[in-house]
Amino acid sequence: MVKIMATGVFDILHPGHIYYLKEAKKLGNTLCVVVATDSTVRKLKHEPINPENIRLNLIKELRIVDEAHLGHKDDMYKIVKETKPDIIALGYDQVHDENKIRLELKKRKINAKVVRLSEYAGGSDLEGTRRIIGKIISAYEFQKCMEKIEGK
Amino acid sequence: MVKIMATGVFDILHPGHIYYLKEAKKLGNTLCVVVATDSTVRKLKHEPINPENIRLNLIKELRIVDEAHLGHKDDMYKIVKETKPDIIALGYDQVHDENKIRLELKKRKINAKVVRLSEYAGGSDLEGTRRIIGKIISAYEFQKCMEKIEGK
Repeated sequence: MVKIMATGVFDILHPGHIYYLKEAKKLGNTLCVVVATDSTVRKLKHEPINPENIRLNLIKELRIVDEAHLGHKDDMYKIVKETKPDIIALGYDQVHDENKIRLELKKRKINAKVVRLSEYAGGSDLEGTRRIIGKIISAYEFQKCMEKIEGK
Repeated sequence: MVKIMATGVFDILHPGHIYYLKEAKKLGNTLCVVVATDSTVRKLKHEPINPENIRLNLIKELRIVDEAHLGHKDDMYKIVKETKPDIIALGYDQVHDENKIRLELKKRKINAKVVRLSEYAGGSDLEGTRRIIGKIISAYEFQKCMEKIEGK
């Protein structure tokens, strides 16, 4: 059995997420997904749209996912130690530095390979989320504009 | 085998969708989900954020879903005839008139029961989508406001 770990925020699911998870699972048999906590999301990127429990529960509903967990707040290696993946699969556009992760794993005597996955033809994961957010904001701006012309 | 049909737009998945699908599946064994086409969404409600193929493909990734199809543009009973469900499960807040559907099914000699499901404690399906959209728009308004104060 080869256990693969995939990680992410998974706020508003889109095809880029599914591609990433499928590519990750191709590397082995069991897919373990680590969902970033709200505090980690805030630290790294932005305010999450959906809170961590909602993001985690949706990930658990995906057929491809064998297990899913929230990460830990201040130590990304703690969940690796707990779940013991054979391979950590990084998405094409995830900001992690592979070599730094490899070094830190070695330091902690964690025996997991780090693999960087290929790009999704439909654009990056972040682009997927941005596309959805962009469409929502355009619709909102359009409605405000129409209200100015037509009245509320 | 009891086949259940659930229907919807399923634009931006959220816990209300999952609740609806799970409650529907409890009525039988096989869950068949019909995803509204873009043209139906436009006719009934609004412009979809995600196009129909993306909405359909995401629904297919859910563990609970046994089969998923796009509906037909102008006749909601066509897909019922094709997929032959034993029960059509309506979500708590779906606008369909149960009795009208029952009459139309009878007229077409389609032998399917119509069941209205209970409300999701976390709020209606539409509220779930609105909550997500509301959060995106608030973040956008906040950013615009900060740009006015701080400059771009």
